[in-house]
Amino acid sequence: MSSDFKPTARSRVKRLHKRAHYDRDTIYAILDAGFICHVGYAIDGQPYVTPTAYWREGDHVYWHGSAASRMLRHLEQGADCCLTVTHLDALVLARSGFHHSLDYRSAMIFGRAHKVTDAGEKLAKMENFVNRIAPGRWADLRPVNKKELKATTLLGMEITEASAKVRAAGVIDDDEDYALPIWAGVVPVRMVAGAARDDGRLAKGTRRPQNIDSFAHLGLAPK
Amino acid sequence: MSSDFKPTARSRVKRLHKRAHYDRDTIYAILDAGFICHVGYAIDGQPYVTPTAYWREGDHVYWHGSAASRMLRHLEQGADCCLTVTHLDALVLARSGFHHSLDYRSAMIFGRAHKVTDAGEKLAKMENFVNRIAPGRWADLRPVNKKELKATTLLGMEITEASAKVRAAGVIDDDEDYALPIWAGVVPVRMVAGAARDDGRLAKGTRRPQNIDSFAHLGLAPK
Repeated sequence: MSSDFKPTARSRVKRLHKRAHYDRDTIYAILDAGFICHVGYAIDGQPYVTPTAYWREGDHVYWHGSAASRMLRHLEQGADCCLTVTHLDALVLARSGFHHSLDYRSAMIFGRAHKVTDAGEKLAKMENFVNRIAPGRWADLRPVNKKELKATTLLGMEITEASAKVRAAGVIDDDEDYALPIWAGVVPVRMVAGAARDDGRLAKGTRRPQNIDSFAHLGLAPK
Repeated sequence: MSSDFKPTARSRVKRLHKRAHYDRDTIYAILDAGFICHVGYAIDGQPYVTPTAYWREGDHVYWHGSAASRMLRHLEQGADCCLTVTHLDALVLARSGFHHSLDYRSAMIFGRAHKVTDAGEKLAKMENFVNRIAPGRWADLRPVNKKELKATTLLGMEITEASAKVRAAGVIDDDEDYALPIWAGVVPVRMVAGAARDDGRLAKGTRRPQNIDSFAHLGLAPK
């Protein structure tokens, strides 16, 4: 399998080709750094953009929710979908207003979702979702029951048509503006996890697992 | 003017009504806490979700970009649009896999954009965009010129149909699960700004303005 996606009419980055990436490594790294994606779909021509938790497994991306969700019910029928993940990396303060910008990484996937219906497969995917949020956590949990599995719709989409757009250039000013006595630079931005907080209703003697504490030291959305 | 938006067929939150908000204060606070929105539109039925910088002024939201942008060229014609802003606030680790979740705040606006063509209005909006990124910065910059203004397409959309969805509940487990000796809690997540970095080509003697330094102490995406 090629490690690059072939740009298509819809996945090809139209503007600023220098920012475009079609290789699996770049696209998957952006996907793997996030927790929330924005899923786009159109119902009777009306576009909707719904934020939802997602995760990647191999060449698929998955998301899930209530079986009653409008978004899931529409997409499980095989409607066209665009799934976008974006990380803000910096505010870019140039010497002119025109060149003010943001450094960011975004990935866009086009395709059609399929519903995962096999109970065993569904359970395995849910395990991966939970372990994506907190590595190793699944083993500690009260097992998922049949009613819960039934109430959950799980969608997967094969990643066959995708592109990334990355701006990491910092300040780019017009040549003649570099001589101006105007400060320019970047303000880096990132997602961080704070210290875990215990639920107020822990059973007596229940201790926080070590792997949860380690969140506090992890930067999220890593490059 | 009412301070609440009337839910419509497309803006009404379909699932988990407890999380739905239609009041201006909640929706505008979510908009004002972000820098990147996800703009949804459909071209020939194909949905696209494009991340872009945005800002709010009164009852309008604005975004801009190159006059050659596919997204802007499509939307300036008055196509239906859905603009979504989302902030992740916490990873929610429950006692069961089923109740693992994310705390978040999101706002969704439905409407049609209009192109701002008046040069004076355009300039005033660009000033607000720059000052949104860095308060007071516009006054320090090399002025925008006619060529730059022409190369920029600025879209505005009146906020008339909007909703917010907020999950801030932390852990919600099934009643019988609270007795289990399983740790549960939340890992708070937030966007932070790091210390500003000078551009490598500052003119000799150029100093960083004080208001830029203060970024380092600001949490972004405040609640």
